[in-house]
Amino acid sequence: MSGPLRIAIAGLGTVGGGVVAALQSKTLEDRAGRRLEIVAMCARDRNKKRGFEIGNWVGDTHALAKVDADVVVELIGGDDGPALTLVEKALKAGKHVVTANKALLARHGARLAALAEEKGLSLKFEAAVAGGIPIVKALRESLIGYEVAAVRGILNGTCNYILTQMESSGRPFNDVLKDAQAFGYAESDPSLDIGGGDTAHKLALLAALAFGTMPDLDTMAVRGIAHIASEDIAFAREFGYRIKLLGIAKRSQNGIDQRVQPSMVSAGTPLADVHGAFNAVVADVKHAGPFFFDGRGAGEAPTANAVIADIVDIARGNMGPVFGIPARALVPLPAAPADSATSAFYLRFQVLDVPGVLAEIAGRLAEWRISIESMIQRGRAPGEAVSIVMITHETTYAAVDGAFKTIAVSDKVISPPCMIAMEAR
Amino acid sequence: MSGPLRIAIAGLGTVGGGVVAALQSKTLEDRAGRRLEIVAMCARDRNKKRGFEIGNWVGDTHALAKVDADVVVELIGGDDGPALTLVEKALKAGKHVVTANKALLARHGARLAALAEEKGLSLKFEAAVAGGIPIVKALRESLIGYEVAAVRGILNGTCNYILTQMESSGRPFNDVLKDAQAFGYAESDPSLDIGGGDTAHKLALLAALAFGTMPDLDTMAVRGIAHIASEDIAFAREFGYRIKLLGIAKRSQNGIDQRVQPSMVSAGTPLADVHGAFNAVVADVKHAGPFFFDGRGAGEAPTANAVIADIVDIARGNMGPVFGIPARALVPLPAAPADSATSAFYLRFQVLDVPGVLAEIAGRLAEWRISIESMIQRGRAPGEAVSIVMITHETTYAAVDGAFKTIAVSDKVISPPCMIAMEAR
Repeated sequence: MSGPLRIAIAGLGTVGGGVVAALQSKTLEDRAGRRLEIVAMCARDRNKKRGFEIGNWVGDTHALAKVDADVVVELIGGDDGPALTLVEKALKAGKHVVTANKALLARHGARLAALAEEKGLSLKFEAAVAGGIPIVKALRESLIGYEVAAVRGILNGTCNYILTQMESSGRPFNDVLKDAQAFGYAESDPSLDIGGGDTAHKLALLAALAFGTMPDLDTMAVRGIAHIASEDIAFAREFGYRIKLLGIAKRSQNGIDQRVQPSMVSAGTPLADVHGAFNAVVADVKHAGPFFFDGRGAGEAPTANAVIADIVDIARGNMGPVFGIPARALVPLPAAPADSATSAFYLRFQVLDVPGVLAEIAGRLAEWRISIESMIQRGRAPGEAVSIVMITHETTYAAVDGAFKTIAVSDKVISPPCMIAMEAR
Repeated sequence: MSGPLRIAIAGLGTVGGGVVAALQSKTLEDRAGRRLEIVAMCARDRNKKRGFEIGNWVGDTHALAKVDADVVVELIGGDDGPALTLVEKALKAGKHVVTANKALLARHGARLAALAEEKGLSLKFEAAVAGGIPIVKALRESLIGYEVAAVRGILNGTCNYILTQMESSGRPFNDVLKDAQAFGYAESDPSLDIGGGDTAHKLALLAALAFGTMPDLDTMAVRGIAHIASEDIAFAREFGYRIKLLGIAKRSQNGIDQRVQPSMVSAGTPLADVHGAFNAVVADVKHAGPFFFDGRGAGEAPTANAVIADIVDIARGNMGPVFGIPARALVPLPAAPADSATSAFYLRFQVLDVPGVLAEIAGRLAEWRISIESMIQRGRAPGEAVSIVMITHETTYAAVDGAFKTIAVSDKVISPPCMIAMEAR
């Protein structure tokens, strides 16, 4: 380990810039046990104004892949295209890879891990999940003595920022989203965040680490936050809950249930107190209990920190399988049938305030054997719209979906009903 | 890495038993990449009833140190005696060491780390701090891109259990301690826990990891929880705080300030919501922000999990310096002068309810330039004992100590005044 570790970086946005800057600090080399030397960098636009000097510029990712380097750091993003090509070329050429690319690994992780391990290489991705929180390392190397029963996380800072703002300001989703875009907390096309897709990518990686399975997006139920109304937030508070977009993967008798969905989280539990753009993960380890991790899930320094930890691990020769167990031992995720999964639910119905409406809804729910724990009807405006809100006892997602289909067609129900699982009570 | 990792275990109490049981699970070997084989074990009493079979018994630690093994797992405890002898012998004989022994490493960590690194060996101690929470690995390998500004932790489950019970039941310290002893949450001699010594050992290790310094108990200010009265807990709640025993190490202009002390923690902050026997650590990383870790700090499975993670790291060849940077680069801790450290404080005075008493106390505080933010005087019982409680603006520990000395001699003050730093506001 005497020679320097030669690093090639593709992508010099916020995170890439942070990595370049942090690597210039000399104290890291004591940790790494050798020099850390950037031998090549590339990005879309060489002339963009950056806070650091561009050195060893190469034209593009094709040129970068050919540079004589030990590690390629991929910070381009995207689940195929140049990022995939670069990572494949780098591994095939015998170079370790560090990436922050959750989309790429959620889609191609099992195959890329196998490729890396055949070659005796590292493929590290701490920065891909929950920014600076070292949850990938924790699941891969630390929480390994016992079976993981479940992982639950707030994995998307944009959604958590929007939900937090909706709660503190009482303003509706669309207004808060516009502000978040103006302040740079949300992309101009926010669909990957608010639709739950980004959380899904991260959850797929956490589930693979937790359960020794291949990352699997296809069997995951994914719902975003765009349908959450201000009154859902207000009702949640009234019942003693907060609404959080959670990625949840849990083992059950029927297999592993993975889902991304807005969830009611009890105000007394740690996930409920994760505010703004922070991320958090709860890993529920059998016998050893829940472990909770919380920190900044995005931004230059937290994410750069995660990339740097991976680079130093590689410099030290800390290898180990990409997903904790060897890629050849990863099994396809045994997906639990989505409909058999159970939960208690918050249900909201927007109805006309006419006699018999509650009886009709209650009747439909009863047909699906859904029983009600508590109910609130707000406002009294005969003939006009009012909200009926219920919390159910434990039932199945299938039952709620079934009941909703029959309720939605009623002429007394004036907008699609809303369901939110009660996840942490 | 084809041969088995040969493990010798000294100490078969709760944690040792958990390690033996967990090592029998075969899934760990996929992670380790090789067989994990217990080749020797010893404990004080061979005939004690245990939940697992004793195999490869050796007479004592002297015999254990001579066994042909790759790793020695030291779970005996104690900061010298057989534990120290065993660890030294093992390292000198070229064996890696895994230990849960915070007292040993807080005293001898720098020397033992140097010995291990000279020989190219690992000395791992995840289980020594905060049980199952992977905070040692997080500070050693993950939160390394930027300077750590401070670490704060609830590191002793016994103290946190007692403080939580005092709060929920309103009962005094001595009663709650007796119950905790009856339920097995506190030792029959609880002094190492309630006096803060155990927290001090763990803090010394966290500070070494966070700041690249040698573990240093000698410059640490340590106070326990035995003087906390039920009314302090009640007043804390009234001000919106909880009292927690914290280990705190923070960088300041004057050096590093390490202290163990009961602290007022604002009810809205994560540390305040750590209940019962749980542990938690906040690592405040410059630029990247605070990271919060929470989980079970003791008990069979959480602690065994930490020991196993260390064993698997060694099996994989994941080495790296004991305290994150090479032992030869560790510097003596540049201790900040304890008296120059500043904080706001909660102060409680037990006084006779006679005219002039408040004026006298306020006068003494003013002489030390301590200014008061808020004040409560409870009860009106002319000539009898009442409590005066104050929260100060920022001042120095030295000023409060000085003022207390002059106030304690007053004939109107009937018991030693109580001070609790406001740590997380």
